[in-house]
Amino acid sequence: MDIKTLANQGVLGLHPYQPGKPVEELERELGISDIVKLASNENPLGLSPKAKAAIEQATAELTRYPDANGFYLKQKLAERWSVNPAQITLGNGSNEVLEILFRTFVSADSEVIYDQHAFIVYALLTQSIGAKAVPVASKAWGHDLEGMLASITDKTRMICVANPNNPTGTFLPTDALKAFLDKVPANILVVLDEAYYEYVEADVRAESHQWLAQYPNLIVSRTFSKAYGLAGLRVGYALTSEAMADLLNRVREPFNCNSLALAAATAVLDDAEYLAAGIELNNTEMARLEQYFTERKLPFIPSTGNFIAVEVGDAGAVYEALLQQGVIVRPVAGYGMPNHLRVSIGTQAENTRFMAAMDVVLAHR
Amino acid sequence: MDIKTLANQGVLGLHPYQPGKPVEELERELGISDIVKLASNENPLGLSPKAKAAIEQATAELTRYPDANGFYLKQKLAERWSVNPAQITLGNGSNEVLEILFRTFVSADSEVIYDQHAFIVYALLTQSIGAKAVPVASKAWGHDLEGMLASITDKTRMICVANPNNPTGTFLPTDALKAFLDKVPANILVVLDEAYYEYVEADVRAESHQWLAQYPNLIVSRTFSKAYGLAGLRVGYALTSEAMADLLNRVREPFNCNSLALAAATAVLDDAEYLAAGIELNNTEMARLEQYFTERKLPFIPSTGNFIAVEVGDAGAVYEALLQQGVIVRPVAGYGMPNHLRVSIGTQAENTRFMAAMDVVLAHR
Repeated sequence: MDIKTLANQGVLGLHPYQPGKPVEELERELGISDIVKLASNENPLGLSPKAKAAIEQATAELTRYPDANGFYLKQKLAERWSVNPAQITLGNGSNEVLEILFRTFVSADSEVIYDQHAFIVYALLTQSIGAKAVPVASKAWGHDLEGMLASITDKTRMICVANPNNPTGTFLPTDALKAFLDKVPANILVVLDEAYYEYVEADVRAESHQWLAQYPNLIVSRTFSKAYGLAGLRVGYALTSEAMADLLNRVREPFNCNSLALAAATAVLDDAEYLAAGIELNNTEMARLEQYFTERKLPFIPSTGNFIAVEVGDAGAVYEALLQQGVIVRPVAGYGMPNHLRVSIGTQAENTRFMAAMDVVLAHR
Repeated sequence: MDIKTLANQGVLGLHPYQPGKPVEELERELGISDIVKLASNENPLGLSPKAKAAIEQATAELTRYPDANGFYLKQKLAERWSVNPAQITLGNGSNEVLEILFRTFVSADSEVIYDQHAFIVYALLTQSIGAKAVPVASKAWGHDLEGMLASITDKTRMICVANPNNPTGTFLPTDALKAFLDKVPANILVVLDEAYYEYVEADVRAESHQWLAQYPNLIVSRTFSKAYGLAGLRVGYALTSEAMADLLNRVREPFNCNSLALAAATAVLDDAEYLAAGIELNNTEMARLEQYFTERKLPFIPSTGNFIAVEVGDAGAVYEALLQQGVIVRPVAGYGMPNHLRVSIGTQAENTRFMAAMDVVLAHR
């Protein structure tokens, strides 16, 4: 009996998501320490002190199950975005938010539209359900919204729009998004994945959470893994109509967000200082990296996230050469970008280390 | 556009899992404090000191994504159960282990067999996929393995066996389980859900993790939420053949187990003292509750878990009356047991408080 013959449609075709190489894994492999990881778009500032204090306080109650409804976190998010708590669905990271959305609405006879260089989890989820993937060619590395509209058929169930997009860092302005939403039929869901929302200038980014009444087919997805620095604890959320949240919460596992995640996310929403410091660091260091790439004549894609995709030629070889120097960045061949590396914006010292290692690589070719 | 019309088969029929009422929710509702919660089969001893230390140490790295492969926890579990790390699939609680299993193997044209009073998540997952539920009548509140075998059809894809079962606490001895597995066709998966494994006497419980080579269709599911006291952090795991784990890990989200969960679970596996203290407390206090129920002429189902189901007549009314006294237990009408309450075994003081509250209820009828 080959167990594979029992698996559902789509499972055998799945290739698991390749995460950024963990620091300790490289330490184990190469027997080196003092490693710099710029591979997973993590906040380089370390944990928010407010989140840390909340975790310490909540640890005493860890033998208890988490609050299945995330009462306090939803209250706080509802205030922040001027929505009702009943419009919120919490996820074990925004990855799970996407999973819940797909499992609620996408089936084997659905089509899902996304950009050819978009966050790869859209493709993985489409595949796992056995739905039809409809990747749309990018325009100057960014989403081609007109091309997405043109790809709609009567089987289209969902369109995923990442803004900013990972790994390209490209950004869609408010006017373009609104015009797009106006043209998408009401029976097609639009997932606006805003994992990097906080890194976009406040006067530039869309107040997309205010659009939910106007577009009942809209899902706004955000996360605490990036600017809020809680990647290790796993909290993301969807903002939707109440009717949609009701469906998503039926599919959601009751204790999907753990207790420390709920406590830390609730606390970090009050840490405006931490958020601002991270954004400022990101802006300063992004400019440094852009200047470095310009000086070295390495083409890069201007980015609104906390990472930057740079064209280096044989990216696999450069990735390996950087690894040998203890610098982990992210190859993005799996995103159809075999000549690019995605570099997360680290601390000043981390970025300096990356540039020095990159210089060594460049000197050898 | 009614968003419900877009939902997948099964979603509309879902009624979310009803967790035990959280302490803080009752505090908010009734404006009382000093509440005793015996509703969710949680470890009453509080967090293991080793788990606490591991959490403190791992907190510094929380801006990093978790180790997607759970390297150290799998190493430790593999040693503990004499399996290969490649036979392990980690879940965000064993609830997610079950979800991954269902999504990998069960489809809308499958049938799933489980006991009529079994853990309700089997029914919820079957429903969410739109598969056919085949509940089998219990025998003396326990699983009727012969009845389960007799319910097999050519559409049966999975049989869920909870041992001990929640909420009845009933237990299947090794011989009966082995005889059952010998008769189940190789193309039907058997999920042996052992969430309460550690509470069963070591010389009585099956070494089911040693059966995986003999039964490639067997899944052994265990958790850190009960005897290991980590319900708030969400870690469960499946032990299977390597071939099956390969499939499950394709469907699993990469960062489903958070960093503190991985650290705490790895550490608590070394805390034999904590585990033993919890089991001893459970045995002592279970005996006290049994004696109390016997004296009050309340029939109960002998339990091998860390909870006991007791027949109280109108259980909904008794539940409410206990709530008013600040004691939360679990009504199990949703499990087809409208006359029972499930009472988790707490500390000596908590159980004393429950018995006193119960006496007040009994005096008023």
